[in-house]
Amino acid sequence: MSATSPQRITLIGLGTIGMSMAALHLARDNVVDVFDTRPDFEDYLIKTLPGFLAGSDSESTESHPEKVVAALISSGRLQIHSSLETACASATIVQEQGPENLEFKRSIWNKVESMAPASAHLWTSTSGIAASKQQQDMQDKTRLLVVHPFNPPHIMPLLEIVPSPETSSERVEFAREYFSIAGSRHRPVIIRKEVPGFVGNRLAFALLREACHLVQEDVVTAGDLDTILMASLGPRWAGNGVFESYQQGGGEGGIRSFLDKLGGTMQNVWDDQGTVNVLGEQGTEWKEKVIQQTNEAYGTQTPEQTREKEERLRELIRIQTQRY
Amino acid sequence: MSATSPQRITLIGLGTIGMSMAALHLARDNVVDVFDTRPDFEDYLIKTLPGFLAGSDSESTESHPEKVVAALISSGRLQIHSSLETACASATIVQEQGPENLEFKRSIWNKVESMAPASAHLWTSTSGIAASKQQQDMQDKTRLLVVHPFNPPHIMPLLEIVPSPETSSERVEFAREYFSIAGSRHRPVIIRKEVPGFVGNRLAFALLREACHLVQEDVVTAGDLDTILMASLGPRWAGNGVFESYQQGGGEGGIRSFLDKLGGTMQNVWDDQGTVNVLGEQGTEWKEKVIQQTNEAYGTQTPEQTREKEERLRELIRIQTQRY
Repeated sequence: MSATSPQRITLIGLGTIGMSMAALHLARDNVVDVFDTRPDFEDYLIKTLPGFLAGSDSESTESHPEKVVAALISSGRLQIHSSLETACASATIVQEQGPENLEFKRSIWNKVESMAPASAHLWTSTSGIAASKQQQDMQDKTRLLVVHPFNPPHIMPLLEIVPSPETSSERVEFAREYFSIAGSRHRPVIIRKEVPGFVGNRLAFALLREACHLVQEDVVTAGDLDTILMASLGPRWAGNGVFESYQQGGGEGGIRSFLDKLGGTMQNVWDDQGTVNVLGEQGTEWKEKVIQQTNEAYGTQTPEQTREKEERLRELIRIQTQRY
Repeated sequence: MSATSPQRITLIGLGTIGMSMAALHLARDNVVDVFDTRPDFEDYLIKTLPGFLAGSDSESTESHPEKVVAALISSGRLQIHSSLETACASATIVQEQGPENLEFKRSIWNKVESMAPASAHLWTSTSGIAASKQQQDMQDKTRLLVVHPFNPPHIMPLLEIVPSPETSSERVEFAREYFSIAGSRHRPVIIRKEVPGFVGNRLAFALLREACHLVQEDVVTAGDLDTILMASLGPRWAGNGVFESYQQGGGEGGIRSFLDKLGGTMQNVWDDQGTVNVLGEQGTEWKEKVIQQTNEAYGTQTPEQTREKEERLRELIRIQTQRY
């Protein structure tokens, strides 16, 4: 079955990421089977999903989200299950967003393997547990791969596709094709090696570590650091990647000239980088300072603020694909 | 004199940053005196400046940039000098974008101090040489401060204002006010300590170092890494800073919950971070790989592509300040 045809997708675990992923899949012509162990699951879904569908592009969804959920259920496009077995029975794709816990992952894939069709693609939305660890007890290790979304996946374009060494290349290609469908703003990228944090979070955490160090050293406040990021690197990297930016910044000689010209400053900065830790004995002091300054700068977001920020994120992503 | 009144600004050094800075100052009601040692300076300025003015918001500039330069010169708003002495004589602000070279900086401030009015504010656009080093031979060390722009400053909102311990707080406040003028998209931020790379480049180089490491280790290609950044962190950080993002990502418990929940993954990533160097014995291998893959991904940009990317950057920055 072609990856661009309508799929039948089982979602296991409908927390925030799961709801957003449901909205992503439902925005296309798929049937989505949902399963979660919380006792009030059906009520929770009916209450929560509209907030994710409300943001999708369709006009009718925008004005009456709750009706759209009811319509999805009555048309059979959205099916709520109280057993994993019925949820998986007809899947072409099974995707889990359950707890980030190796025992849970191993046990769920063990069950799914016995319940889902043998052809079904198996995707884990984990942010940290490699497919090669999760698949240990599986009979057929070629089926499982990581599809790591960035929050919220119904808006954010990135999906990191991270196969284990045993995942078949056809399964990898299927996932890439599924998210590359024409008209989608999603951008799947295949990661070639299983490394902690994959790529997106590694880049984010490298910057975050230095950010925490600079707050700890009183070079800048948390709020001012955010202003700096939003007033420079954010829009730059929304428009150009880091390597492309420096290719451009180097003028005619490209990134080679840039590395030659700025090499001294870069090395000074690298030699002076902070190495705060979040676990272990070190660290309480910077953590409390960062938490306090972040709370001072932002407090708790109101639902209106969250909605406004989502609108802005959508608009920023729309601009990326616009032609001038 | 109030920082929001029209200023008389001397620009020393009209390379790419200097031209962009001239466009920034000329977009407001200032008189700009320009000085550069290149022999063909006047011709070069007349040929190059329109490309920077063309991007500014005014409609008439958009359609006939070369006429606007001629009009600026004939009205006296733009004055071209062949001597530093006449260029500085009536300045309220002197700003240098000369070579990144300590000897040059010291020598220029020594001269400027004897030529410019004693009240003039002295700004250096350096990306790496702290004001406390540049001011060593000055009589009055309270006047000089770093105003570090992000390229291109006529578009990019950030200005890092970095005083030395001897810079007067009134001089710092004047610079902040000048760039905070109502209606401007510029966002000046005061940095509290002189550290290598200030804040923006430290954050950029922390991410770049990990990016080079991941390319070196064949986890991802340079082009794919850029796609990842543009499809996730770029738009996120254009919309929210890093601390605000994690405050949001932590749900009701804010960044504290985030650090508790993701702490294990963060520490794994931090422990596994790469430490490539750009100077010294190490490094040729990763550098050549990064340069080659960047060239393969982007080649040399055509002027049309550059213009298109500038348009997109402007649009991304416009979205940031829009209300929903």
